[in-house]
Amino acid sequence: MNAQSRDEFEQRLRQIGAERYHDKHPFHHLLHGGGCTPIQVRAWVINRFYYQSRIPMKDAAFLSRCESADLRRAWRSRIEDHDGKVGEGGGIRRWLKLAEAVGLDPAYVESCDGVLPATRFAVDAYVSFVREKPLLEAMAASLTELFAPKIHANRIEGLLANYDFANETSLSYFKQRLKEAPKDVAFGLQWVLDHADTLEKQNAAAAALIFKTDVLWSQLDALHSAYVEPGRIPPGAWNGTAGMLRSEEKGAA
Amino acid sequence: MNAQSRDEFEQRLRQIGAERYHDKHPFHHLLHGGGCTPIQVRAWVINRFYYQSRIPMKDAAFLSRCESADLRRAWRSRIEDHDGKVGEGGGIRRWLKLAEAVGLDPAYVESCDGVLPATRFAVDAYVSFVREKPLLEAMAASLTELFAPKIHANRIEGLLANYDFANETSLSYFKQRLKEAPKDVAFGLQWVLDHADTLEKQNAAAAALIFKTDVLWSQLDALHSAYVEPGRIPPGAWNGTAGMLRSEEKGAA
Repeated sequence: MNAQSRDEFEQRLRQIGAERYHDKHPFHHLLHGGGCTPIQVRAWVINRFYYQSRIPMKDAAFLSRCESADLRRAWRSRIEDHDGKVGEGGGIRRWLKLAEAVGLDPAYVESCDGVLPATRFAVDAYVSFVREKPLLEAMAASLTELFAPKIHANRIEGLLANYDFANETSLSYFKQRLKEAPKDVAFGLQWVLDHADTLEKQNAAAAALIFKTDVLWSQLDALHSAYVEPGRIPPGAWNGTAGMLRSEEKGAA
Repeated sequence: MNAQSRDEFEQRLRQIGAERYHDKHPFHHLLHGGGCTPIQVRAWVINRFYYQSRIPMKDAAFLSRCESADLRRAWRSRIEDHDGKVGEGGGIRRWLKLAEAVGLDPAYVESCDGVLPATRFAVDAYVSFVREKPLLEAMAASLTELFAPKIHANRIEGLLANYDFANETSLSYFKQRLKEAPKDVAFGLQWVLDHADTLEKQNAAAAALIFKTDVLWSQLDALHSAYVEPGRIPPGAWNGTAGMLRSEEKGAA
């Protein structure tokens, strides 16, 4: 079988997002539409932090396998964007601003103590994937970023319209990603289109992107199951009260 | 801090099961009480097969890290129990008998095509854990077997009482495990009690056992979320109709 044309293959990748990206998950509709309780918002912030915290480790695993210095130089900015400079903190510290704005102690969020086991398993699967699979598949998995700007724009708009905690500072993570993601994904997409030059490689790259949509979807399923419906929190996960800022505890009392 | 006494430490491990083992998950109450629909039973069989299929790989990862031939000899029977002899098949083939009895094509189940992503992530996390952690923690994670005989006995009783598919052949997997598990766990428990000779090691072994209860619990949470409540099947997972035996398709039509 011949490889798909560049355009057909790009279309195929975009179709995976149209069908499986987590903007279609009901938890996001609830969140962006203002339907989440404070506890549900906090649970999302706590669990999504685990994903954020592993992204630079995932990118370091990728770098550790790149023999091309050019590729390493191009990819390294992802780690810099998330980790930031010494004493500054980049995307990870911006996420902790959001944690604070929703009433959580940033040190608790950073500890990852209350993270759902299912979140850990899904995110760790992504780090392992990038550590073990061919570079083409590892890079193709990152292409969910193709679909991220739209969800980030919707999120900023929905959170600002519906929640008191939302403002310039608390949402700075998403605003910054709107600037960073397009450059990252433009590079990744070109590289994948250039290197997937047989049908077999195109199939493997498409499967990698599907895998990554599963990683994202599973995180929201676990969140929904624990904190929305049926609302059964697994043993040991965040119980809705731990890790609050002291001012919030008073407010709640 | 001093290590706990052998008895205290064993009690601590057993308490983890009392609090977190998946016999407490509502899906098992539903299944054993006869409350599952045929689709829910099949979804359980399909997803649990993925766990079964990875257990011998997990045990091989363990063997691959044992320098002691004595320990390898003692542990190897686990692979033999699950994989069986050439042309026979052991526990894995017994599980496929169950698949057939509930109307599923065993080849479909064996393909693992419809397995929930969250099941894969949880089970793969267990295989990685055993591949990467110290032997003591890898072995401690297997001690959920301490709690298995009770759930297997309940399951046999509950399935026989409540479902037409249940008989000597379809439940042979569980009957056989009732014979195998006690020898496995007696060995594992002694080894862990002997080798966890500092508080630090005891804490690590207890954390490993908690990790394993999370692996089991997460699988049922994912199953419940997809097929019971709210009953939202993730993109690409088994849809309730694929992979049926032809006789069942006719029956359903």
